[in-house]
Amino acid sequence: VNSLIECVPNFSEGRRADVIADITLAIMRVDGVRVLNRHSDADHNRTVITFAGPPEPVLEAAYQSVAAAAALIDMNQQQGQHPRIGAADVVPLVPLRDTTLAACAVLARTLGQRIGETLGLPVYLYEAAALRPERRALPDVRRGQYEGLKATIATDPARAPDFGPARLGPAGAVAVGARPPLVAFNVYLTTSDVTIAQNIARAVRESSGGLPHVRALGLLVQGQAQVSMNLTNIAVTPIHVVVNAIRREAARYGADVARSELVGLLPQQALLDAARSYLQLDTLSASEILETYLGLFPPTG
Amino acid sequence: VNSLIECVPNFSEGRRADVIADITLAIMRVDGVRVLNRHSDADHNRTVITFAGPPEPVLEAAYQSVAAAAALIDMNQQQGQHPRIGAADVVPLVPLRDTTLAACAVLARTLGQRIGETLGLPVYLYEAAALRPERRALPDVRRGQYEGLKATIATDPARAPDFGPARLGPAGAVAVGARPPLVAFNVYLTTSDVTIAQNIARAVRESSGGLPHVRALGLLVQGQAQVSMNLTNIAVTPIHVVVNAIRREAARYGADVARSELVGLLPQQALLDAARSYLQLDTLSASEILETYLGLFPPTG
Repeated sequence: VNSLIECVPNFSEGRRADVIADITLAIMRVDGVRVLNRHSDADHNRTVITFAGPPEPVLEAAYQSVAAAAALIDMNQQQGQHPRIGAADVVPLVPLRDTTLAACAVLARTLGQRIGETLGLPVYLYEAAALRPERRALPDVRRGQYEGLKATIATDPARAPDFGPARLGPAGAVAVGARPPLVAFNVYLTTSDVTIAQNIARAVRESSGGLPHVRALGLLVQGQAQVSMNLTNIAVTPIHVVVNAIRREAARYGADVARSELVGLLPQQALLDAARSYLQLDTLSASEILETYLGLFPPTG
Repeated sequence: VNSLIECVPNFSEGRRADVIADITLAIMRVDGVRVLNRHSDADHNRTVITFAGPPEPVLEAAYQSVAAAAALIDMNQQQGQHPRIGAADVVPLVPLRDTTLAACAVLARTLGQRIGETLGLPVYLYEAAALRPERRALPDVRRGQYEGLKATIATDPARAPDFGPARLGPAGAVAVGARPPLVAFNVYLTTSDVTIAQNIARAVRESSGGLPHVRALGLLVQGQAQVSMNLTNIAVTPIHVVVNAIRREAARYGADVARSELVGLLPQQALLDAARSYLQLDTLSASEILETYLGLFPPTG
């Protein structure tokens, strides 16, 4: 009854402020949800909104945001550095408190069905919500991007959506899923040579023999080479391990890390892990952080 | 009315579990306070307890803990690596929420007066609570330690206490003060040569030309050289700057940092600073940490 979930939809618009505002408002208008973070990137041409609340209002807000994005973004015009299949490209649900990944998977299927049937968009269920094992991995769902999917969705049974019509309109398709928390993390290099970022991405990502639970792409953003990553299990592969690996790889090309950026929010555990490693506070835990206890003393007046 | 303060008393007992338990219980028995952390070190022969609550119960618990320590610890028998002048050696009050350092200074003087008059212990007010400028710095108050103070307290007007009698019994004296949050932080070196720790302490502490807002001692703890520190303003000198400086200094002697440890709690800001530095997340703030928002959704049932 106290379940708290997070939704982190990715929209294929990072440039037009009015469109981004309208999508955000569609979420904020739903009672009971709170928008915690919004990250827009003009080069990626993508906006990631993080919001949270109890399951029912979160599903409603997610639905409204997909409806707004589908009405406002034309994928035939949309271009950007980041792979995408639709206006509301990815809609993951994440368990935060008093709930489970399995419960979020059930919610994601409910949400996906509503999007498919009411908005008439093709919906692919991914990760913990996937109905087909080959759709668990998001990059597989997104293969060929909007243009590739458009060419094959009607004829290739492997691309038939889980909900909604097997045809791609201007709003494209939606990947709806449930997943554990992840960290979306970009590292900018001290070079404008995108091939260095691509080589480093290949070296650090799991799918080509790098670090477990790391997905990585090499992109060119604001004239700088960028390694854009999702870290899907920071308990196994913490951020500092990834950053150290990128520094080592970059050095081979005479480059270094210029700066990093988050897309969305960071779990406190990531901070603890970095402090444990770099400050050699080997046993540091949240029980040693002052702010952990402030909630014990709620303001009364 | 919602003021929250912290008290971090240091007791000159880090070995006898029954004594440590009795002092802790004296605090826990006071309604409205919560013990957040306790750190005992047998080599330092010292226990640091962190507790918090509204001002009135915190003052009561602080008084009770000083009374317990004074009854249970005989400074004529006490030996340890850490400098000390009394059984309840240092009692700082720290503003946490909806209060100020100046308000904590007033509270510290009230507490000091009660300890002096009711328990008959000499009390020195220090830092923000100091009544004499030369008592602002704790190392000055503690100069000569218990033995040195015992020899001079009755005859040297410069050592006359602010409250209580000018004579030192087996419980010694108490330094009562108010201060901003500090980080008590020990770094163990990969050597048993205490002179290396002493040289490094001299290099990094403010009083001998090192880093601002760093107090440091070189000690021998568990057979390892240790740099024991108070970082009194981590906004100016963050932990990672201190750790990096120690690593550099240690390298000059062929040593390195083996591990670090906290004494008490760490403010979340210290974690953010470390992540900003090492992960190059230049603009990271608490607003990007997921846990910052969980309090927006209080459990209802």
